[in-house]
Amino acid sequence: VKKFNKIAIIGVGLIGGSIGLAVKKRKLAKQVVGIFRRPSSLKKALKCRAIDRGTLDMAEGVSGADLVIIATPVGLVPVMAKKAMPHMAKGAILTDVGSVKGFIEREVVGSVSHGIKFVGSHPMAGSEKSGVENAEADLFKGALTILTRTRRTDLAALRRVDSFWKALGSRVKVLSPEEHDARVALVSHLPHMVAQSLCLILDDKSEPYAAGGFKDTTRIAASDPVMWTDIAATNAPAIEKALDLLIRDLCWLKLLLSEGDIRSISARINQAKRIRERLEGGAKG
Amino acid sequence: VKKFNKIAIIGVGLIGGSIGLAVKKRKLAKQVVGIFRRPSSLKKALKCRAIDRGTLDMAEGVSGADLVIIATPVGLVPVMAKKAMPHMAKGAILTDVGSVKGFIEREVVGSVSHGIKFVGSHPMAGSEKSGVENAEADLFKGALTILTRTRRTDLAALRRVDSFWKALGSRVKVLSPEEHDARVALVSHLPHMVAQSLCLILDDKSEPYAAGGFKDTTRIAASDPVMWTDIAATNAPAIEKALDLLIRDLCWLKLLLSEGDIRSISARINQAKRIRERLEGGAKG
Repeated sequence: VKKFNKIAIIGVGLIGGSIGLAVKKRKLAKQVVGIFRRPSSLKKALKCRAIDRGTLDMAEGVSGADLVIIATPVGLVPVMAKKAMPHMAKGAILTDVGSVKGFIEREVVGSVSHGIKFVGSHPMAGSEKSGVENAEADLFKGALTILTRTRRTDLAALRRVDSFWKALGSRVKVLSPEEHDARVALVSHLPHMVAQSLCLILDDKSEPYAAGGFKDTTRIAASDPVMWTDIAATNAPAIEKALDLLIRDLCWLKLLLSEGDIRSISARINQAKRIRERLEGGAKG
Repeated sequence: VKKFNKIAIIGVGLIGGSIGLAVKKRKLAKQVVGIFRRPSSLKKALKCRAIDRGTLDMAEGVSGADLVIIATPVGLVPVMAKKAMPHMAKGAILTDVGSVKGFIEREVVGSVSHGIKFVGSHPMAGSEKSGVENAEADLFKGALTILTRTRRTDLAALRRVDSFWKALGSRVKVLSPEEHDARVALVSHLPHMVAQSLCLILDDKSEPYAAGGFKDTTRIAASDPVMWTDIAATNAPAIEKALDLLIRDLCWLKLLLSEGDIRSISARINQAKRIRERLEGGAKG
C-alpha cells in the first residue's frame, strides 16, 4: 500500500480513534493528526494514543494532509466537509465514515472544492459502545466497508480509499449511495429501531423477566443516541420502507397465530433458522 | 437442601441434560435417571454424563422417583405427564420446564392422579443452542426460574421445587400461569418472532451486508424450531397481544419518520437506551 504523508481525522471517537490506532499500528501514514472542538477530547485521544498529535484548528489540522477522514456523527459530516475543504491541499482525498450515504453525497458533493476528491466510506464496524476509550486497532479486521461511487467519483481516489480500508483489514464493496442506504436500512437501521421498540413497549411488571434472549435482541438499543437520531433523520425514506416490510410480515404472523395455522408458522421458523445459520461465516463487524 | 432419592428426567436435551449435570455436581440426588424414546439419545446422554443411568421404559424410569421432571418440548409435556403419572409413587412431585404455562396447567392439572403433586417450572436459561451435548452444570446459575401457582398447588411441593431450583443456582419467582404467559410473551416469545421476521424479510441482495448489529438482534432466530413452533402453538393469544403492541409502536415510529419529527425520534432513542442499560445487572440467562 502506498503510504500517506499525513492523515487528518475530524472527530476522534470509537471509529475515528480506531482508524488512528489502526493506521499507527500498520504504519500507513507518517503522521496522524486529530481535529477537535474541545481540549478535553483532544487530551483523551492523545492519552489513548489514537493520534500522533491533535489540534483545535481545522485549517492547521487538514493542511498538508493527503487524506482527511470525517468521523463525526452523520449529521455533522456536511458542515465539517465545508469547513475542511478550503484548507485542504489540491488533489487531497476527503472521505467520511457515515452510516447514511445519499444524504452525505447530496450535501457534500455539490460543494466539493475543485481539486478535492470525495469518496464516501461506511465501515460496518462498531457496536453499542462509543468513545475513543473503546477504540481498537483491529476494529475493522474482517469487517465490511462500503464505498460509494457516483458518476462524479474520481476513480484513482476510489482505488486509493479502497486499498486504505483493505490495509486496515477490512473487506470492501462499492455501491451507489442509494443502494447503500436501502441495504443498510434493512440490515442495520431496522434492527436498531426494532431493538428500541422492544425496549419501549416493555412495561415495569415484565422488565424483571427480560433475560438472555431479550438482552441479545436489544443490545444495540444502547447505541449512541446522537448517532442514531442522525441516521433516522438522514435516511428516513429507506427506513420507512424497511419498517413497512417488517410490519407487513408481523401482521401476517399475527394472522397465522389467530388462525392456528401451525404448519405455516413452523415453516417460517425453520426458514428463519436456515437464513440465520447461513449468515454465520458471512460478514463480520 | 433436602436431598432427593431419585430424580427422573423425561427428555434429556439442553435443559434436561443441564439439570442432570447440575444435580450430579451438587449431589442433590442419590440417583439421576433419564427416560428416552431412542437408544441413540440414551447413549449420548450417558456419554455426556448428564445422567447416572437411562431407560426406554417410562414405568421403570419414574417408579420410586420423588421428583419427575419433564424436559421435552412444551407440546409433549401433557402426553408425557399422562404416561408418567400412573407409575409415579404417591406423594411424588411432578414438574416440567416448559416456556408456556397456561397450556400445561390446563392440560396436565385436570388429569393429575391423586397423590401426585404438580408444580410448573420455567427456567429462563438456554440459548439458540440445543441438545445434551451443549448442556452445562451451571446453566441455571444466576438465571431466573418462574414457578406457577394456582388454587390447586400443593404448597409443600411448591417449596420443595423452589429450593430445588435455588440449589441449582437459580433465582425463583412465583406467578400465576396466565401472568407467566403474558410476561414471557413480551420478553421472550416476541423477541424470537421478531428475530425470525428480520431474517425472513432479508433479500438476497441485502444479505451480504448483514453484520454485527443484525447478527446480535437475530441470534435467537437460530433456536430449535420444534420448541418454538410448540411455543407459538400453545401461547398464541398472549403472543398476538405482544405483537399488537410492537406493531403499533413501529407504525408510530413510521409516522414520526414521515413527518420528520426528529425531536420525538430522539426522545424515543434516548428512552430506549435508558431502559436497555437498566437491564444490565438485572436478569441473566
